[in-house]
Amino acid sequence: MGLTPTRDDKFTFGLWTVGNRGRDPFGEFVRPPVDPVTAVRRLADLGAYGVNFHDNDLVPVDATSTERDRIVRDFRRALDATGMDVPMATTNLFTDPVFKDGAFTSHDPRVRQYALQKTMRAMDLGVELGAKTYVFWGGREGAEVDAAKDPVEAIKRFRAAIDFLCDYAIDQGYDLRFALEAKPNEPRGDLYFPTTAAYLGLIPTLAHPDMVGVNPEVAHEQMAGLNFFHAVAQALDAGKLFHIDLNDQKPGRFDQDLRFGSESIKPLFFLVKLLEESGYDGPRHFDAHAYRTEDQEGVWEFAAGCMRTYLILKEKAKQFCNHSGIQALLAEIRDAGGVADVGPYTRGRAEELKAQTFDREALAKRRLPYERLDQMVVDLLLGV
Amino acid sequence: MGLTPTRDDKFTFGLWTVGNRGRDPFGEFVRPPVDPVTAVRRLADLGAYGVNFHDNDLVPVDATSTERDRIVRDFRRALDATGMDVPMATTNLFTDPVFKDGAFTSHDPRVRQYALQKTMRAMDLGVELGAKTYVFWGGREGAEVDAAKDPVEAIKRFRAAIDFLCDYAIDQGYDLRFALEAKPNEPRGDLYFPTTAAYLGLIPTLAHPDMVGVNPEVAHEQMAGLNFFHAVAQALDAGKLFHIDLNDQKPGRFDQDLRFGSESIKPLFFLVKLLEESGYDGPRHFDAHAYRTEDQEGVWEFAAGCMRTYLILKEKAKQFCNHSGIQALLAEIRDAGGVADVGPYTRGRAEELKAQTFDREALAKRRLPYERLDQMVVDLLLGV
Amino acid sequence: MGLTPTRDDKFTFGLWTVGNRGRDPFGEFVRPPVDPVTAVRRLADLGAYGVNFHDNDLVPVDATSTERDRIVRDFRRALDATGMDVPMATTNLFTDPVFKDGAFTSHDPRVRQYALQKTMRAMDLGVELGAKTYVFWGGREGAEVDAAKDPVEAIKRFRAAIDFLCDYAIDQGYDLRFALEAKPNEPRGDLYFPTTAAYLGLIPTLAHPDMVGVNPEVAHEQMAGLNFFHAVAQALDAGKLFHIDLNDQKPGRFDQDLRFGSESIKPLFFLVKLLEESGYDGPRHFDAHAYRTEDQEGVWEFAAGCMRTYLILKEKAKQFCNHSGIQALLAEIRDAGGVADVGPYTRGRAEELKAQTFDREALAKRRLPYERLDQMVVDLLLGV
Amino acid sequence: MGLTPTRDDKFTFGLWTVGNRGRDPFGEFVRPPVDPVTAVRRLADLGAYGVNFHDNDLVPVDATSTERDRIVRDFRRALDATGMDVPMATTNLFTDPVFKDGAFTSHDPRVRQYALQKTMRAMDLGVELGAKTYVFWGGREGAEVDAAKDPVEAIKRFRAAIDFLCDYAIDQGYDLRFALEAKPNEPRGDLYFPTTAAYLGLIPTLAHPDMVGVNPEVAHEQMAGLNFFHAVAQALDAGKLFHIDLNDQKPGRFDQDLRFGSESIKPLFFLVKLLEESGYDGPRHFDAHAYRTEDQEGVWEFAAGCMRTYLILKEKAKQFCNHSGIQALLAEIRDAGGVADVGPYTRGRAEELKAQTFDREALAKRRLPYERLDQMVVDLLLGV
Repeated sequence: MGLTPTRDDKFTFGLWTVGNRGRDPFGEFVRPPVDPVTAVRRLADLGAYGVNFHDNDLVPVDATSTERDRIVRDFRRALDATGMDVPMATTNLFTDPVFKDGAFTSHDPRVRQYALQKTMRAMDLGVELGAKTYVFWGGREGAEVDAAKDPVEAIKRFRAAIDFLCDYAIDQGYDLRFALEAKPNEPRGDLYFPTTAAYLGLIPTLAHPDMVGVNPEVAHEQMAGLNFFHAVAQALDAGKLFHIDLNDQKPGRFDQDLRFGSESIKPLFFLVKLLEESGYDGPRHFDAHAYRTEDQEGVWEFAAGCMRTYLILKEKAKQFCNHSGIQALLAEIRDAGGVADVGPYTRGRAEELKAQTFDREALAKRRLPYERLDQMVVDLLLGV
Repeated sequence: MGLTPTRDDKFTFGLWTVGNRGRDPFGEFVRPPVDPVTAVRRLADLGAYGVNFHDNDLVPVDATSTERDRIVRDFRRALDATGMDVPMATTNLFTDPVFKDGAFTSHDPRVRQYALQKTMRAMDLGVELGAKTYVFWGGREGAEVDAAKDPVEAIKRFRAAIDFLCDYAIDQGYDLRFALEAKPNEPRGDLYFPTTAAYLGLIPTLAHPDMVGVNPEVAHEQMAGLNFFHAVAQALDAGKLFHIDLNDQKPGRFDQDLRFGSESIKPLFFLVKLLEESGYDGPRHFDAHAYRTEDQEGVWEFAAGCMRTYLILKEKAKQFCNHSGIQALLAEIRDAGGVADVGPYTRGRAEELKAQTFDREALAKRRLPYERLDQMVVDLLLGV
Repeated sequence: MGLTPTRDDKFTFGLWTVGNRGRDPFGEFVRPPVDPVTAVRRLADLGAYGVNFHDNDLVPVDATSTERDRIVRDFRRALDATGMDVPMATTNLFTDPVFKDGAFTSHDPRVRQYALQKTMRAMDLGVELGAKTYVFWGGREGAEVDAAKDPVEAIKRFRAAIDFLCDYAIDQGYDLRFALEAKPNEPRGDLYFPTTAAYLGLIPTLAHPDMVGVNPEVAHEQMAGLNFFHAVAQALDAGKLFHIDLNDQKPGRFDQDLRFGSESIKPLFFLVKLLEESGYDGPRHFDAHAYRTEDQEGVWEFAAGCMRTYLILKEKAKQFCNHSGIQALLAEIRDAGGVADVGPYTRGRAEELKAQTFDREALAKRRLPYERLDQMVVDLLLGV
Repeated sequence: MGLTPTRDDKFTFGLWTVGNRGRDPFGEFVRPPVDPVTAVRRLADLGAYGVNFHDNDLVPVDATSTERDRIVRDFRRALDATGMDVPMATTNLFTDPVFKDGAFTSHDPRVRQYALQKTMRAMDLGVELGAKTYVFWGGREGAEVDAAKDPVEAIKRFRAAIDFLCDYAIDQGYDLRFALEAKPNEPRGDLYFPTTAAYLGLIPTLAHPDMVGVNPEVAHEQMAGLNFFHAVAQALDAGKLFHIDLNDQKPGRFDQDLRFGSESIKPLFFLVKLLEESGYDGPRHFDAHAYRTEDQEGVWEFAAGCMRTYLILKEKAKQFCNHSGIQALLAEIRDAGGVADVGPYTRGRAEELKAQTFDREALAKRRLPYERLDQMVVDLLLGV
């Protein structure tokens, strides 16, 4: 197997992922900060394609314009030196106390305006560094107290913000698509738009639906116990898979952002297979971080592990396609027995169909050897 | 309080709800069947507005046409005698072994065709009895073995079926809207379209999006730990709340279909408040059943309890609006401080916004007395 | 109702609860620190009985002995001035990076020794201030990587630590009981002893089982979707309810520590009823914190709300006992029909029992009007 | 690898597992009954060691004594012919409506007595066929309505039943140990004793604690999102792992009883490793069933798959022990640096420990290369 990542694999990491310092609700930082230039160099060495960032991952929120310029210059030099890209950028609309009750959905119009300002500036920064995709994760757009905020109003406010920012991108001539990222809860008790599908439902109601898609994240769907593979399939079917966040998560608990493939081996095999076979050609972005027990060198092990497991699963996806036993079973399972699809509606077809006689019992008896098929997949995954 | 249900409350029950016989994966029936005519009469006595049914709740799947006609005639007489309506009908596409691997998404084109036939006939039956809404719950549209079925293909098959049936309804001149009902899992390991939002994402991709909406169910969203109130809000925002299934459920477990309001007192208060204030004028349909410990008389207690708790919560929603303390807090919370919304994008507004200076610290200090507000809601709910 | 808390209600708060500054994994502090003396005074004003603390809630980990003495003196004066008690104390074995892979279960014997030292010193401090109960929450005793630590070994290490500390307490002549607090996960991927029952299983294997009990926490059991009322019932049955942590939580998500009664109205009604009727006479300790949206004044609202809702539910528990409809139903449900219990085993009883004939069908038909009963409870809770 | 099961592997199946007919809450039977003799023969052919049963899996509840004798004789002949054992038996206390509100915890003393009678008779049957372990799963011992049943009283009733039956076994001279099996919910809203640990807490309070242990089931712990490996570790530490139920399950949903290893590849690897290395020499019992989509031949594929995956994981457990990279990392991780354990309490040790100085910062910096270790495990599992 070719398990050494190359640029063609399009693996990307957020600055915040390898820069994660291991603070959690019950403990302090365990690792020093990683400066962006180091992150770029180390990731490039590991075979990554690019890095992504929140505005303040790169430029501190209170930086002067001189500081900003210096940081951006140094960062660009590191990109140039390594050949790394910045395919995606995003805005931090959740860390600062100003966003304690939301950014675009805050009750306070000044907070909403500040969120717009911060996003426009962050879009400028992202575009300046080459980003083609702009991600929106509404980390504080939610509620603990449903008495306080009308969720219909919150949706309208969120829509207005996205519409405004689409227009801004268009007006600036930016070659930029938006990707909306869902999460069911945490840090808020409940977040609005809790699933990828919630954004698939929102997008058609936007002013510029064509330039807006989704950024599904493994951990976020799995927090709600949902099948991530199915969620991505729906995004693909809708032509809306604009970006993807790869990591791992045990269902029904806090957001873990674990190393890709460290928990959900079988589900992530199907995901990788789908991504590789679907024609999706965007970045494979890892939005994860190292265990808090890890030191800084462990962070690079973690990053290498994400890519390695992706490549192993990609190789297994190929094996699946070339596995004669699996393919024979699939052929049997999918065999339509020469019966044609009914096709689009015509009155004639409907009448014919309504008059037809079906032998329910015979149809029910059809063999569906899914246990055998699934065991073959388990064997393949376990390398037997 | 007016806690006696009347027709104006538009309370409906499925025949399958009061007819539930208490079988479960580990135990046999505990109650005798309830014939539809009895169900209509007892529900009418309790103050319900109507009954809904799956085709085979009313007409057994193997009934002759003579039997069918007799059953329908008797049922209609009961409706006429009681003034009960049939606002909604649906198809049973899950009980028979023929649907063991799905109906519209089955690999077998004959099964898909039989599912279309069964649905067209069931639509005929529903319309004959007055139904204006037709619900689709794809109880077997899912998978345990993701190797076996391509989820993108499954979505396409489901879409083709809905498109075909929309055309059928149009061609027949039926005054019928479709309402799609989601569920995350059970009886399948994973069901396609696991959340109401998944259908909100699908609908814009259909051939006749205007005639298709959703039928959210409390228990189904809560199984995935999602905020049902928020899901309904998104459906309302999209103009897609065509029907609703009311019941109750503890999160993260098997589908319980508990008596409305028996568990989720506070979340369902917000739901009732939203339904009553939103202008939603469709049925308040209870899709629940009595505990298996209950005998037949207990079933009618159960049905009465669903309606009673709805009316109590509706009364409390009115109290919320008239509660001076709550309203004063809300006014404070929602006070925009005279700052106008930024409004739709213009280049001028964007430039002005980007140049503006915000005092983050001052904005962050704004008081948001949500603990006090929420405690007032708890007091109101507890009748203190 | 008497909804004003008094000392007799034995309401206590941790210094860390009203002192919570609202930092979370995605955002910074929103509130200033609260000094312990202020906490004591404000809580006393609200009617609380006492305060509890982790060693470092009161004395910073790097305080000199002079600083320690001054802090303790000031704190004791505040206690004396207000009449507040310190019924419980505990150790912070999770914040410092030294505990990143556990304290008593760390692989490193020096970390385990430091944890013992820190706990002995913290016990000294707690006892000095009057604590009679010492709580152990093993916030970092767990794993993300099950390859790294043998869970049987971890249990042995934890047991050895508790045994050592029991002996220390005995040797010092401390009048102290230990209460073990479980949690399923967070901050670790999985925590050892994930449920209250896990500690009930451990305690009989300790060297001094009589002096060790449990400290169940609402949120921690509910994170795993478990019935907290049942968990407390088992602790009571075992004579092991030594302390209790009251708060609230939505199941299947991150640790929320919400205001008591803000979410789980019905389950917490049964809990309060059980506590009040069981003879439990320990503190009613609130281990919760205000929403991050709240300012400092809101924290005191939050604290008042915890106590208020407890008292409302306590009052409703009394109403339950005096409700003639409920009591009549319960009498019917619990009526043994004059049939005596079989009693302890004797050969004669066993033979008689084996020979008896039971009419299964008749027994199965017994009416169990639980829907009616539960609706009466809902009515009572809603104050109808 | 030796992936062909042999008697030495001690693989057992319940008659109810391969006999599962695929009925679920939303659908009817899809497979014909499997008679016990056929089950024994086919399982023997596949390499199983034994079969287990509920009384009524073998002898219908209404069988005459003549029918019983004939069934038992035929069954014994099949056992003799194949060399299959019956290591475990259990009682069905959940299917019949008589148990609708529990068996040992029913309010009705006649139901409790019938449950005792049924269990004594089933114990006789089990022992007659060679069972050495008797399992108790209280499938209906629980509640939906916590107002109706006092959970402390329920615990007392359950304890009285187990005590009675222990005495019965002793009095009969049966060489039988009891194994208690927990489940959090389903079919009841909540089941008493929801986790394996709840039974570990109960056992020390029984009259004959030595003869009672636990029967942990993968699916049942995972329904509550708990770490099954940790639960089994605690049972082993307590000397209480008397039996084990192997299957698979996605967390936070209905009881799936999936083929062993079909979902939780990594967690079950650690489980198999623990079982094999712990000295546990009891049966490896599969309590699972084939997908409802499967026909009867698929059931035998399913059974073969359970055993195959166990053997693959067992082989990988050996590889783990022989993997020089993994073992070197583990040696580093577990290296105590020459520091001895503090040992049991003495006053001298405590004083010495309290006086010691620890360099927290240095200790915190210790490298814990868990990402690297975990990636090696993933590589090993994936056969890279």
